[in-house]
This record gives sequence, structure tokens and C-alpha cells, in this order.
Amino acid sequence: MFGARFTTNESVLVQHSRDESAFPPVLPSAVIYPHNTEEVSKVLAYCNQNLIPVVAFGAGSSLEGHVLPLKGGISLDMTEMKKIIEISPEDLTVRVEAGLTRIALNNRLADVGLFFSVDPGADATIGGMASTGAAGTTTVKYGSMRENVLALTAVLADGTIVKTGRPTRKLSAGYDLTRLLVGSEGTLAVITEVTLRVFGVPEKMSAAIVRFETLADGVAAAAAIVQMGTNIARCEFLDEASIRNANIHSGLTLPEQPTLLFEFHGSPTNVASDAQSVAEIVAEFGGTNFEWTSDESARRKLWQARHDAYWSNVHIYPGKRIVSTDMAVPLSALAKAVEACHEILSTHKFPFSIFGHVADGNFHCMIITDPLNPNELTDIREITHAMASKIIAMNGTCTGEHGIGMGKIESLVEETGENAVALMRTIKNAMDPNGILNPGKVLAQKYP
Amino acid sequence: MFGARFTTNESVLVQHSRDESAFPPVLPSAVIYPHNTEEVSKVLAYCNQNLIPVVAFGAGSSLEGHVLPLKGGISLDMTEMKKIIEISPEDLTVRVEAGLTRIALNNRLADVGLFFSVDPGADATIGGMASTGAAGTTTVKYGSMRENVLALTAVLADGTIVKTGRPTRKLSAGYDLTRLLVGSEGTLAVITEVTLRVFGVPEKMSAAIVRFETLADGVAAAAAIVQMGTNIARCEFLDEASIRNANIHSGLTLPEQPTLLFEFHGSPTNVASDAQSVAEIVAEFGGTNFEWTSDESARRKLWQARHDAYWSNVHIYPGKRIVSTDMAVPLSALAKAVEACHEILSTHKFPFSIFGHVADGNFHCMIITDPLNPNELTDIREITHAMASKIIAMNGTCTGEHGIGMGKIESLVEETGENAVALMRTIKNAMDPNGILNPGKVLAQKYP
Repeated sequence: MFGARFTTNESVLVQHSRDESAFPPVLPSAVIYPHNTEEVSKVLAYCNQNLIPVVAFGAGSSLEGHVLPLKGGISLDMTEMKKIIEISPEDLTVRVEAGLTRIALNNRLADVGLFFSVDPGADATIGGMASTGAAGTTTVKYGSMRENVLALTAVLADGTIVKTGRPTRKLSAGYDLTRLLVGSEGTLAVITEVTLRVFGVPEKMSAAIVRFETLADGVAAAAAIVQMGTNIARCEFLDEASIRNANIHSGLTLPEQPTLLFEFHGSPTNVASDAQSVAEIVAEFGGTNFEWTSDESARRKLWQARHDAYWSNVHIYPGKRIVSTDMAVPLSALAKAVEACHEILSTHKFPFSIFGHVADGNFHCMIITDPLNPNELTDIREITHAMASKIIAMNGTCTGEHGIGMGKIESLVEETGENAVALMRTIKNAMDPNGILNPGKVLAQKYP
Repeated sequence: MFGARFTTNESVLVQHSRDESAFPPVLPSAVIYPHNTEEVSKVLAYCNQNLIPVVAFGAGSSLEGHVLPLKGGISLDMTEMKKIIEISPEDLTVRVEAGLTRIALNNRLADVGLFFSVDPGADATIGGMASTGAAGTTTVKYGSMRENVLALTAVLADGTIVKTGRPTRKLSAGYDLTRLLVGSEGTLAVITEVTLRVFGVPEKMSAAIVRFETLADGVAAAAAIVQMGTNIARCEFLDEASIRNANIHSGLTLPEQPTLLFEFHGSPTNVASDAQSVAEIVAEFGGTNFEWTSDESARRKLWQARHDAYWSNVHIYPGKRIVSTDMAVPLSALAKAVEACHEILSTHKFPFSIFGHVADGNFHCMIITDPLNPNELTDIREITHAMASKIIAMNGTCTGEHGIGMGKIESLVEETGENAVALMRTIKNAMDPNGILNPGKVLAQKYP
């Protein structure tokens, strides 16, 4: 049925055996490239009848092993389903196929003065971002995928095609199937089309940078800015190690101090007044050298260190892999949480840096590991679980935006409790009784 | 076990037999007033074993018959569970029992400079608002219950207590059980505790009013303001009939013209600049007599007509009941949708008025009916279904914020399709196999 779009070619299988996580690769049995929802439906109906696992594959940018076909079976590569079906500028919505990437979408939206706000860093597919409940640097102002996905077309395990949600700004019609599928990591259905909320490109964007003596001061300043209700579009924290990495990677000479970066979106008047409010608050926390600019190239330069935060690790440590944590806590616990993680990591040999979306209480520890020494992963797993337990005890979560994937299945139980996880399993069993959809993710594998 | 908190007293049963909808009352067999989650768990475990229906009851302010015990059984009155468990000003969160009302919550929050933003008009309970996925006048800026409920404690049909979500601003840990329960209208679980996101009281609030020649102009102006990304906290539309009702009810002398009301929240500079932007846009649509004020008592007076929009009908038509529709459409279809409904209603004998949260594409038609003449309800049901079909054909929804309840079960199928409704039923059957939770709501009753 699929001709050359069904393949068992070795190099294609290898390409679908891993993602950006440090988990060891696992080969699928075959890769299929569907072209429309009906084809996805046929694949799932067949695989469900024949008990063949199916894992949807997008850009492969997951940090949690989401696309690894742990039980073999089909890797369903969605990247040839990349049409923009409809742009509705008056409604501030777009409808796209799941395999479209966010940068390709934004390039098209720019032509009509719009943008799609969710920015996880990687050029992920929209379907992958919906599946993991992705978020990113602009979530503090524009929300995550949970707020920006309005409607879905998805295929259930048995091949049934469902349409969830409506392209309206408000909806209260029946169970919220859209948000049940968003963040379900390919374990409940395969998403094939997504209707997204988009925004008009702001009249003015400006950026600011400020340094602090201590990590605690920087993080506390960010929390205070949110508590004051200041209108910020981005607010990112970088520790000394992140700045040092960026200096090496991009030949910058930034002061190696805990740093906050801001972006402001709005009318020229409002942007200037918002930046002024932030300048006043950060000064109270000992912030120094507050610089701001609304010149576009200067703005991009100011943010260079943040764009480097992940990739500088990749390049500075050639041949190594990065384990990225993704914890989030209530704002009042943020400074304490970041310090606790810094302390735990400092007692081990692995190079690390910390940065994150601190206005949302969400931060990442980048831990460098050698893939040629698999024992390291065991050690790092112990460290990340220890950090997760500390964060969960602070009413936090083991994942603000990366999802559970393979590595946090036990942390999910610790965080939300046996009963809530049992309810997730009840839903999984009802929707995918044969357990063919992305087995071994989110919930412990209990299927044959 | 419950002593006097279990009652079959006739007047108490009558009080739990109806809500603000026009549906004829149905008596429960008994009313129970639980005091904590464990008691709710015991009631549900017992009722599940003995196949006794259970309907949670809050303020009784539903407009869709949600609390009517269609199959008898227990009305579980949650209003004695009204503790504020914790206010966390630094985290901008509160944790409350489900029976607390939103005005009681806001009175306490005001002491610490905070407010809970979701304002559906009625003084509903927080648990009821979560169950119906309530929204209201401030949703355009602050979101609905779907965005503002962070975590829940809920009791499943068999008495199992689950805790969903975390008090963090971002969360990607497993299936989004919180949003599955929000809007499930008491059919999947009984919510006993809610963690809410709250906001700091804005430094400045100002209001504005503007009139239009035609309904279409007013609605189109509202859509344009949203499309421009202007920062508005409220944007409400009132038709001529709504203004006339307010004039009669409150002795006002407002010009009886289609009217838009605005509210702006933020710093003094931003609020003035936002109002200025709005003034410029509405002028392009023929808006006249733009008045704005940041004086609090003048602001309340400006908004009087909106506060009267529902209750003026109750008082002007003594002994009558109101049927309120709740349709929402994409912004580009809004003017056409409101006009289509106006046209349909104009061909019938029932007095009506139209108002709504037009910045969200959501509007209400208030239709006056005589409860002594039940044939009227049959006619009105035909009218509302005809309007819903028109709106669904425009990619709209039959309910933006009131929920499905008893009256829109068929419209839900028309709107989202047989397959999505079948999936809702799969989830319902898995979570409540005996069908004891609020039978006959959201999905057609198929249980004994």
C-alpha cells in the first residue's frame, strides 16, 4: 500500500532509533511515511489487529526518549504531512498537518503579520509539540501548547478518526478531549492535524539583560516581577556556567555572572513602561548593568547567550550527550529549588549548567555524559531522581514541558500518587486495549 | 453516619430539585452535606455498590440543568465544604474546598491584594465552576477555569480519592487529568478541592463605553480590537434590548443603541495607552460618544447595564424563566452569527435580548418563557437547536462556557461528531462503569 514509503532500510531505521535524549538507540522494525489521516488510520487499524506497536515520529527532538520504539514495530514518520491547511488571520488561528515544523509555520505566518508563539528551542513538529505538551521561552505571556491547541484531528488505536475541539476561543462542549491528547505522548492516539491559536506580530519588541551577584538574587528577582504582574513576554535565567559556555561557543565576552534576560512585546509606550518597571524591580535585588534595547539586531545579540544555552554544550563537549532535567516549582520555592539542584550536582563529577524559564518556575540542568561509558547514565539517573524527589517535596513537578517519556515513569508515581496513575492507566487501557501506541512511555509497560 | 446532614426533608429536596435553567424540577431521594473528602469518598463507595445516582450540588446557578437529579438518588450538597485551605501570595495560588463561592474567596483575597479572575456573573461555587469549565467577562485577559485550575482533589465513582495536577505554572507530567475533570459536569468524578491561579489586583483599572449604529458594527469593532492584540481585560457587547431592560430595571437613561463596554487593567501609563488604542479602533467602525473613566464609582456606574443584563430580565418579567443560549464562533464569523440569531429570534413571539463576551466570540441570547406553559419550552428548544445548527455550521460551538447539561446532548454530537462522542462514552464507561455520576448529562443516558 505504501510502496517506497514503507521501508526497512538500515540507515532509515537507525535515523528513527533515537532522539536528542541520551537513551541508547532502539531500532524500529520498519518506517512508514503516511501522507494523510486516512493512511494513518489504515496503519493503526492493521497494527491493532496484528498487535504491532506504533510510535509516531516527528523531528526527533524529544529529550525524553519519546520516539524510541522500545518494543520494535512501526515508526510512523509524520514529516511528509506538513501542509498548512488554512491560515485565518481574522480568527487568529491556523490549521496545519502534524508533521509541519514550527519554524516553517512561522516563516509562512510572517507574511501575514502573525506568529505562532510556542518556542521550545528545537525546530520541532507541531504534532510532536502537541503530543508532549511543549512550552518554551514565551509561555509566561502566550501560554504553552495546552493553551494554544484549539482543536485536533487524531487517530485512535483501532484506526477511528476523531475530531476534537473547535476553532473558537472558548469551548465548554463535553469532555476536553483536546487537552487529554495534548501531552499524552503518542500513547492514546496519533495526532494528524492541529488547529492553533496564533498572535499578531507585536508592534514593538524590546529586550533587556541584567546581572546578579548570586543565583538566588536573580531567581528571586524573576519571581518578584511575575508577582507584580509586569507584562513580560520572555524572562530567562542563565547561570555562570551557561554564560561561560556561550562565551566560548560564540566568542562573546559577557560577564560570567548569574544573568536574567527579558523580552517585552506591545505598543512602543507600553514596552518602554514595562521595561522601566522591570528595571526598578531588579535594582531592588542587586541587579547591575541593566541594559535594554529595542533595536532588532542588538536584541538578537543580547539573547545570543540564551540561544547558545543548549547547543554550546553539544559543541564544547564533542562526542558527549546531554541529559536535561525539566523541573518546575511554585515561584516561592524557585530560588531554593535551583540552589538545591546546584548543590547536588556540585558533589558529582559531571559538568553541568543551569538555565530556564524562571518566570514560570521552570528550569533545566544540563548534565554532560559520555555515551561510550553507559555506567555514567546509571549514576546520572540516580542524581536526577534525587533532584526530582527534592523538587516534588517542594510541591513541584519532575517535568514542566519535556514530558515523562521513558525516564520519569517512577517520578510520575511519586509526584501524583498511585491513584492518579491508576486512573491514567484506566484511560490508557480503555483507549488502547492492545497497548500498541508508544508502549513503555508515560506508564510502566504492562502489556505483552 | 451523617446524622442531620442526611435529610429527606421536603423543602430541602425541593431546593435541590432545580437550578437557574428553565427545566422542570426533579426531586432527589435525599440530600447529604459532606464535610470533607473522606466523607465524599464514603458516600460514593456506598452509592456505587448500591447503584444509587449521585449529583454534586453547589450554588444551583447552572443554566443547563446540571444539578437536576434526573434518576433520583443523592444530591451531594458541597456548600458546607467552604474552607480556604491555603493562600500563597508569592505563588499567586490558592487552595480551597469545592463548596466555597467565588465572592467569598475574592473578599478574602482582597485583604492580601489578590483576586480570582473568573467571573461568570453568578456567585457560583468554585467546584461548580470547575465542573462546568466556567468562564466570564475577564476571560479575554485572564482565561477560563481551564486555564486557572492548576490542581484538583476529586473522588471517583468507586470512592477512590485522586489528586491531579500540581500548584506549578507549567506541568507536563502524564495525562492532563485536571483538564479532563474540568468541564466534565460531575459525570466523571466529584471535585472536593481546587488549587487556583490568582492575580495581583491591578495597579489601575479603567472603563470605557461606546455606542454603534448597528449591531454588526459593534461586533466587528470588538473583533478588530482583539485582532490588533490590544490589551483589554473585559469587552462586553449589549444589544438595544439589553440596554432598554437596564434602563427600566435601574432607572438609567442610556441611549438605546448597540453598546460595547471595556475594562483595562495595568499600570496607569499602559491603561491610558490601551484605552487610547481602543478609542481609535472603535471610531473606525462608527463608534460614537466614547467615554472613559478611571474613577472607581464612575466605572461601576458605566458597567451597571452589563451587571443588569441577566437580572433585569428576571425582574422585568416576573414569574417568567429565562432560557440562555451560549454560542461561540471564530471572530471572523461573529457579526454574521449574532445577526443570524437575531433574525431567527425576531420571527418568534418570545421577548429576547442579546449580550456577550464578544472579544472571545461568545454571546448569549436571553429568551423569556412562561413556566406555566410548558409547550413554550418545546418551541424554544426548537429555536435554540436551529440557532445551534447555524452556529455549528460556522465552525462554532453550542456552548462557550455554560456546558452541555441536559439540553445540548444532541448538539454535542452534531458539533464534534459521533466518533468523538463515542470516545467520551468510552472514558465515561471506564471511569464510572455503573453510571452513578450525574446520569443523563453530557452524554445520552444509556445506563439502567
